[in-house]
Amino acid sequence: MTRDETEAFAHRLADAAAAATLPHFRSALSVENKLDDAFDPVTVADRAAEQAIRALVFATYPDHGLHGEEFGVVSGTGEYEWVIDPIDGTRSFVSGVPLWTTIIGLRHTGSPVFGLVDQPYVGDRFWGGGGRARAIHRDGPARDIRTRACTDLSQATLMTTAPSALSGPGELDRYQQVEAVVRLARYGGDGYAYCLLAAGQIDLVIESGLQPYDVVGLIPIIEAAGGVVTSWAGDSANEGGTVIAAGDRRVHEAALRLLNA
Amino acid sequence: MTRDETEAFAHRLADAAAAATLPHFRSALSVENKLDDAFDPVTVADRAAEQAIRALVFATYPDHGLHGEEFGVVSGTGEYEWVIDPIDGTRSFVSGVPLWTTIIGLRHTGSPVFGLVDQPYVGDRFWGGGGRARAIHRDGPARDIRTRACTDLSQATLMTTAPSALSGPGELDRYQQVEAVVRLARYGGDGYAYCLLAAGQIDLVIESGLQPYDVVGLIPIIEAAGGVVTSWAGDSANEGGTVIAAGDRRVHEAALRLLNA
Repeated sequence: MTRDETEAFAHRLADAAAAATLPHFRSALSVENKLDDAFDPVTVADRAAEQAIRALVFATYPDHGLHGEEFGVVSGTGEYEWVIDPIDGTRSFVSGVPLWTTIIGLRHTGSPVFGLVDQPYVGDRFWGGGGRARAIHRDGPARDIRTRACTDLSQATLMTTAPSALSGPGELDRYQQVEAVVRLARYGGDGYAYCLLAAGQIDLVIESGLQPYDVVGLIPIIEAAGGVVTSWAGDSANEGGTVIAAGDRRVHEAALRLLNA
Repeated sequence: MTRDETEAFAHRLADAAAAATLPHFRSALSVENKLDDAFDPVTVADRAAEQAIRALVFATYPDHGLHGEEFGVVSGTGEYEWVIDPIDGTRSFVSGVPLWTTIIGLRHTGSPVFGLVDQPYVGDRFWGGGGRARAIHRDGPARDIRTRACTDLSQATLMTTAPSALSGPGELDRYQQVEAVVRLARYGGDGYAYCLLAAGQIDLVIESGLQPYDVVGLIPIIEAAGGVVTSWAGDSANEGGTVIAAGDRRVHEAALRLLNA
């Protein structure tokens, strides 16, 4: 697939997902508990959006694979795999907070090559890959985005979805070593936070317990915008787990040192 | 002032504020520290928006008073006082998070009678007073909003701006008594959270350390939508301080009991 073809198709996928999600946002909707022991609302909208994306992918590219949050993995016969989260941030969605997103990622022979993140209620869309990251707001012009320079961790703005989500052994303590140093820490945001980082609005995102569909679509945007994203161990974040993203390599290095002190 | 006149003028104020704030949102902007010992960014946009509102108020209603965040109190000779926060949620603003708002309140002989909250980047606007609360999104139709029923605190969604903002003696402990019981707790949102409550998306907001301009414009919207808002002691929130808002009176009572146990 050419970059232009990939980009145009990803926009079609996001449009289809938005048509499925928006009618349900801030309306009465059916909330189910997906996990027995935790509050993890899954909505009709979540499933409808994934089905819309699946239908388009398989109709257009029958050899592509697809890994979605709701309906699992379909292996393809070709080299491309779409990795999608139809509603990333379902807790925001069911609370009326417009920071949930649709995350669309594309892997080629296993490596993330393109990503698109859409927040259709706000009208924010971010996408990137192959050295170019862009964003659009509503009917404004598409513009290139870049991470911002941040020379020192003490000057950084940090986001994480929620301290309570850092639930692995020792994770909260390790995270707090970083939060104690930064200039400003904000909670909430899920995948949207990484887009703010790519757009040069914040400097650092630290999370854990992520799935591939939470992060595959973010990696190409962040990297194309000049940022760096790895696991807390400093290796690939392609399979989820612990994730740290920074707009400036110096902040990434300083935060990794504190996470692993 | 008639209700229609008040409403029409408040929309004009919000439009003027939006014209001052939006060009600065997600752009490089000058951030100053207003307090010596804390990070409290005040932007050019904050001041420009308040100046725009002041100019309109004093040109149109020379006898009205005005209490703004940035430029303080101007006493009027009449019975009306505008109480405004040009950018509520400056930490969101400087982080690119579109949950900051412009809050416009009107008091008549000291009592809140009308409020309007605007988030111009998202295109969300909420207003209310005198038994009627409404909202609009972008160019969609204005619609009446109502709080939702919530019979039990264990079913409630709670928002607070940040646990670290509950900095008065014992406040965090008292808040956590409530958070431990609710179904879902979310952080962030500032004044926007109260609008989600008025629109029936969440059930409870608990904050402290508020100024009059943080809350005067919210009270008429919440009450007109069917909700209740008081201090943690159960009396008027008109002067700020501790604030608890609930969409359902049963949730308000249950949360007050835990806050004061």
